[in-house]
Amino acid sequence: MVSKLAKRPVSENIVELVERKGIGHPDSIADGIAEAVSRSLCQLYLDEVGEILHHNVDQNEVSGGQSETWFGGGKIIDLPYIILLGRAVEDATFQDRKLRLPVRSEAVKAARSYLKENFHDSKLAQESGFNIEDCIVDVRMGKGSQDLIRNYQRQARRCPPNHQICKPANDTSLGVGYAPFTDTERLTYAMERFIRNEAPKHGLDAVGKDIKVMASRYKDEIHIIIACAIISPRVSDPYEYHSIIEQLKALCMQKAHDILGYNVEISINQADDLSSDDPGDYYLTLSGLSMENGDDGSVGRGNRVNGLITPFRPMSTEAAAGKNPVTHIGKLYNVLASQIASRIANEAGEEILEVQVKLLSQIGSPIDLPAIASVELITQDDNNYHKWNGRAWDITNESLSSIEELTGQIVKGSIALF
Amino acid sequence: MVSKLAKRPVSENIVELVERKGIGHPDSIADGIAEAVSRSLCQLYLDEVGEILHHNVDQNEVSGGQSETWFGGGKIIDLPYIILLGRAVEDATFQDRKLRLPVRSEAVKAARSYLKENFHDSKLAQESGFNIEDCIVDVRMGKGSQDLIRNYQRQARRCPPNHQICKPANDTSLGVGYAPFTDTERLTYAMERFIRNEAPKHGLDAVGKDIKVMASRYKDEIHIIIACAIISPRVSDPYEYHSIIEQLKALCMQKAHDILGYNVEISINQADDLSSDDPGDYYLTLSGLSMENGDDGSVGRGNRVNGLITPFRPMSTEAAAGKNPVTHIGKLYNVLASQIASRIANEAGEEILEVQVKLLSQIGSPIDLPAIASVELITQDDNNYHKWNGRAWDITNESLSSIEELTGQIVKGSIALF
Amino acid sequence: MVSKLAKRPVSENIVELVERKGIGHPDSIADGIAEAVSRSLCQLYLDEVGEILHHNVDQNEVSGGQSETWFGGGKIIDLPYIILLGRAVEDATFQDRKLRLPVRSEAVKAARSYLKENFHDSKLAQESGFNIEDCIVDVRMGKGSQDLIRNYQRQARRCPPNHQICKPANDTSLGVGYAPFTDTERLTYAMERFIRNEAPKHGLDAVGKDIKVMASRYKDEIHIIIACAIISPRVSDPYEYHSIIEQLKALCMQKAHDILGYNVEISINQADDLSSDDPGDYYLTLSGLSMENGDDGSVGRGNRVNGLITPFRPMSTEAAAGKNPVTHIGKLYNVLASQIASRIANEAGEEILEVQVKLLSQIGSPIDLPAIASVELITQDDNNYHKWNGRAWDITNESLSSIEELTGQIVKGSIALF
Amino acid sequence: MVSKLAKRPVSENIVELVERKGIGHPDSIADGIAEAVSRSLCQLYLDEVGEILHHNVDQNEVSGGQSETWFGGGKIIDLPYIILLGRAVEDATFQDRKLRLPVRSEAVKAARSYLKENFHDSKLAQESGFNIEDCIVDVRMGKGSQDLIRNYQRQARRCPPNHQICKPANDTSLGVGYAPFTDTERLTYAMERFIRNEAPKHGLDAVGKDIKVMASRYKDEIHIIIACAIISPRVSDPYEYHSIIEQLKALCMQKAHDILGYNVEISINQADDLSSDDPGDYYLTLSGLSMENGDDGSVGRGNRVNGLITPFRPMSTEAAAGKNPVTHIGKLYNVLASQIASRIANEAGEEILEVQVKLLSQIGSPIDLPAIASVELITQDDNNYHKWNGRAWDITNESLSSIEELTGQIVKGSIALF
Repeated sequence: MVSKLAKRPVSENIVELVERKGIGHPDSIADGIAEAVSRSLCQLYLDEVGEILHHNVDQNEVSGGQSETWFGGGKIIDLPYIILLGRAVEDATFQDRKLRLPVRSEAVKAARSYLKENFHDSKLAQESGFNIEDCIVDVRMGKGSQDLIRNYQRQARRCPPNHQICKPANDTSLGVGYAPFTDTERLTYAMERFIRNEAPKHGLDAVGKDIKVMASRYKDEIHIIIACAIISPRVSDPYEYHSIIEQLKALCMQKAHDILGYNVEISINQADDLSSDDPGDYYLTLSGLSMENGDDGSVGRGNRVNGLITPFRPMSTEAAAGKNPVTHIGKLYNVLASQIASRIANEAGEEILEVQVKLLSQIGSPIDLPAIASVELITQDDNNYHKWNGRAWDITNESLSSIEELTGQIVKGSIALF
Repeated sequence: MVSKLAKRPVSENIVELVERKGIGHPDSIADGIAEAVSRSLCQLYLDEVGEILHHNVDQNEVSGGQSETWFGGGKIIDLPYIILLGRAVEDATFQDRKLRLPVRSEAVKAARSYLKENFHDSKLAQESGFNIEDCIVDVRMGKGSQDLIRNYQRQARRCPPNHQICKPANDTSLGVGYAPFTDTERLTYAMERFIRNEAPKHGLDAVGKDIKVMASRYKDEIHIIIACAIISPRVSDPYEYHSIIEQLKALCMQKAHDILGYNVEISINQADDLSSDDPGDYYLTLSGLSMENGDDGSVGRGNRVNGLITPFRPMSTEAAAGKNPVTHIGKLYNVLASQIASRIANEAGEEILEVQVKLLSQIGSPIDLPAIASVELITQDDNNYHKWNGRAWDITNESLSSIEELTGQIVKGSIALF
Repeated sequence: MVSKLAKRPVSENIVELVERKGIGHPDSIADGIAEAVSRSLCQLYLDEVGEILHHNVDQNEVSGGQSETWFGGGKIIDLPYIILLGRAVEDATFQDRKLRLPVRSEAVKAARSYLKENFHDSKLAQESGFNIEDCIVDVRMGKGSQDLIRNYQRQARRCPPNHQICKPANDTSLGVGYAPFTDTERLTYAMERFIRNEAPKHGLDAVGKDIKVMASRYKDEIHIIIACAIISPRVSDPYEYHSIIEQLKALCMQKAHDILGYNVEISINQADDLSSDDPGDYYLTLSGLSMENGDDGSVGRGNRVNGLITPFRPMSTEAAAGKNPVTHIGKLYNVLASQIASRIANEAGEEILEVQVKLLSQIGSPIDLPAIASVELITQDDNNYHKWNGRAWDITNESLSSIEELTGQIVKGSIALF
Repeated sequence: MVSKLAKRPVSENIVELVERKGIGHPDSIADGIAEAVSRSLCQLYLDEVGEILHHNVDQNEVSGGQSETWFGGGKIIDLPYIILLGRAVEDATFQDRKLRLPVRSEAVKAARSYLKENFHDSKLAQESGFNIEDCIVDVRMGKGSQDLIRNYQRQARRCPPNHQICKPANDTSLGVGYAPFTDTERLTYAMERFIRNEAPKHGLDAVGKDIKVMASRYKDEIHIIIACAIISPRVSDPYEYHSIIEQLKALCMQKAHDILGYNVEISINQADDLSSDDPGDYYLTLSGLSMENGDDGSVGRGNRVNGLITPFRPMSTEAAAGKNPVTHIGKLYNVLASQIASRIANEAGEEILEVQVKLLSQIGSPIDLPAIASVELITQDDNNYHKWNGRAWDITNESLSSIEELTGQIVKGSIALF
């Protein structure tokens, strides 16, 4: 159902607030690991039994270590501890052979690989004495409820005759999406990636990968607050620290202007006490990751599937990372709702100011037949509404009918989830 | 700042969606344990050193067990495993004595006590062979980052002269609140409590405490979907199961009508396959808790501080349970924003249709001086807006200036957080 | 084979050394838990499938907590942590039904029950604030090697025709036993039990259950060195502590004289510094158990199956506690060798000065057909040797042929193993 | 005190039994890790505070994984899980600076390095898909009892005036040693090393490192029973397996003859069922280590400090590996007693048939002043006894007075302990 959205666009609200936890934030690390584990299990299942079996591995915990840092160096007192929890089917029958699938063993390897691929840096390991591979990765995954496994295996019961897609929704659950991004959202999203990818290229190799960007807009003034772990072995004293922050700030100011065409205010590492000589008054880490020192992370407490936290937008609290990409509605519908909103917004360009998509599943019904599919539009004017009304609905239906393609894309890793 | 909220009230939207995870849901158990642990640590700190020291224990995980159930009984194959993570200061100096505080030991005891107080049932333990005290409760809490401890101990740096409150905000973080509840919200909230407290009194002692209520409203039709763990030793066969569900449904229908004055549609345990003889096709548990069988829980993934999940309302993704109640803005501001909204709505009665409150902190500033305090009103008409505009602001300021009282109330347990 | 033992009896050696770790010693707690778990699994298997399935649960670890004690009280900083490891079959088929057996869940319950039965003391729990049930009991038992399970299930391959007993030995392994006990051994064994059972009856309720007795004999002088955890809430100051030790010493002196008919030297808690006021210089514990404070325990590192550690006697290093009592030779042969030695010694009285029994199994052969069965005798004179030679062999054969009775006795708990 | 040993030499007993668990046996892996961790902590302490602080890390557990193997390959279902327990001081003051020492972090690194150095094989990792570095290494080391730390720090209280060595014994504990090795002992010890080092050089690269050698001698016939994990990816079928075993047996026969000058009987992998096609009937592993599949290991349950288990010799049950090498008598005295016995035996050559050394410490006395030092000799004849009596005592005293040199040698790793 398509309807008018009876409010002004988010970008016209007086106050706006947007956050992105970078990939090195402990909550994002938890998400990243969860999704890496799920993808590796999918691959294992496909290889061994030809189809993805039931699993939900969205329950790991990143329990931060303890470090001591000073200008020029530091040491790890306690290693970060990561425990993989959740569920995965481990007994299967394939072509009359009974199989035991190495789900826990694969999970640990996938988690370690994820850390290595994203955070390993031989040079830094040598300078700091801490290697990301030193993290303790433990696993206590269970087998899953027979109930949920059963539902997973079942054909949808409420399936209309001749309906093509038979996988039933695993739960009564909601997916939401919106488009287009406001300036504040675009900037927040871009800024984390910019710092992560570009800071080192500008000689700022002391800038770590744990980057949190929070943007608030009051009327038309955007204020970007960045918290960014600085790598202690690469900063010799408070002056150098200060200089790095100033250079980073200048870079970010320029980038923001490039993106928006106007200036924003930027603050970096506000909790620092620049009058102090004490390294404890600066955001120093050995590894560029706050999880080395007391910062914990959980799946599903960071970014939503579009990469942002937007408290004033409709949001699902579902954790998507680590859920099975076959029947888990909290994963599929959030991704799909975002995609639908984006497609409509992209196609319509400036004629549509805001699209909100809501998909509500019904447990047991085929995954492409939501209980509610609502598309709400804020258009430039009524003409535009009538122009896009039907097309929006078509896009929605097309997307729903190809929902099963998401699974493959998720397994391949071509869909970002946090 | 008070302003008009430029949209129609949530209750007038075409679609509304509200969820409440009952106290027996694994995510709520994780929240409940986190908060019980935090409160017991607060008490320990107050007893031993006279003030609440730094801690954030919002990182436990409830890793579900494995059970096998059948009509008339069942068995626990693997016990639920609960691991307490997070941070708490354990070394302190008080009156020149160095103290080691038993933070991990207290945490485990608090977690066990919470489970016992809320879920112990001697009679059921005997019938089922499973005692809630059998759960494995492990602990690996660390000491916390020196950085955050330091900020915790510091006086607010951006404190105006003669300002009374000196505790600085621990983070740049947001609190949101709204009032009043819509019909759908009121009903969702009330229904979980009703089933939990009243079902046994109506002879339905097979109804467990793991109750999830999801309500969707389409135009003016509310549909309540309830998932409710049924206690297998107390149900002899599918017929009795069916009868219990029907009785429960009738009770809930009546209750809904009592609350709202009109009828709603109610579905209970939709995933059941009533045509089946296989106990695996019913939502059976030994203990009335799905965590006995593969359902995991995490802090902060369930209800928001007002007890609901409302994806179409502004929501914070912050986990409140388990955070320290002295400087943790994600906890204090979410509670406070809800309270401010409720006070305004209660005072104004029908003249105000909707209040939204947003409080954004600034790291290092005193906790009663938010960077942004925004109150948005939808009033019956413009007169009402001008009437309540100033008063709303006064209530906000009064609430902010007494923010420190929240701490004591939270420690006492008189503020619900999930 | 029976032969003469070409040495003088142990009691005539110049130096003798004997040790007993009391049931409250961490190594004995590890043994006690291992055996309690094995026995409960045996019962579970018997109840569910009518026979004892493969398991070896001799791998738990008792990782001590941390406490702080002072005269008059103390506190537990970190709880003792006990992890149950090892192996047990959990999937079985019985009467064509596939069963999943709750081996881990039973193991945890058995471990907790063992602690409660042996160390719970409500009064002490109240005085000390520490309850033995507060210990963390975790479990990570695996399924066991298919190989060993297979061997367990197999009929003995090297079984002679019409041989009755078909269970094959699980390993090439040795059992040793000796009799009679020397004075030093008798005294060591008796003294720990005496203190544990009698001290409280003599008003010494500050004497804990963690009692280690080490006896050395040099020529004909026996020196008993006792380490005994004192319960801090029950001792108000060093004077009272001193007085308790003196009273305990007097009791033990008397007991030793009662047993042996002559005096021995006794030292208690030698590491104490009686000149100090510092509670840290005394052996104080809240619970009477050193595992509350940094003392760890492992299965198989304490007493041998006869309850003693006797480094100058033949000893097996096999851990018996926790091993399966059906095919595990390290368990069965050590018990049996002790029993054979005792039977021979008891029957012969003073005519036999020393009996040593050695049984060596052969993997795959029936458990009652050892590769080597050696009985060595030291008799008063050659006549006695010829008199008892044949009878000793008969006793050995009778014992071997009834080896399967051991299993039931072990499951019932009527055979001590440490 | 030196005395005659009133028995015939072990080599003249009718039955003799000797065992060696190779370095790849799970118990030896536990020992090896414990000692590697202790050594790395010693080095950390020396580097950071100039002296070795208190620790005992003899409590790790190697909890075996689960694998499935077949001729030509296999897979790891569950990874081996190793948990490091025990105690180590982590807070220290050095030159007025308070230090937190990264004991847990170092422990994990040391354990991983030990595994890598001893068992890593890139080629095998590629063939098998299992890398020794995949093992999960977890750590939960505590701080240690204040009591024991205190005793560790104390000067010996029972120290004679002007005595040089002031470190007090940590416990009343016993060390035993003997020399020379019998033929059976020499052969057992040599055989494990031979197989481990030489089998691959003879083309038998399917022979794993988990090698257990048990030798029994009955009169003058020695029977060597070898259990040796075979690497499944390197054996294509039962025929090849059989051929490998036969080649290995021939090699070992030859080696035994080289060592002893006469033939012995050798059996390898007796539990195999060579008539079977089922890989489960053979001792196959992916990695050459049984810990991959259900075999667990504990510190102190394998070889004694001389590398052998000799149940008919005097033996200490103390675990040496992982104990601190400064005050731990169970470690120092066992090493020293072996060294003393060897020195005497080496010097005397054939004139002494057997030396037994027993050292008993007294808690609180300097470590070089044992309560009992007993040297017992079996000599060719009385003349030899009188000849060597005095020299044996001198060697004992020289060794005791240089006991502190052991510490450095142990830290360097130049003394084998298992």
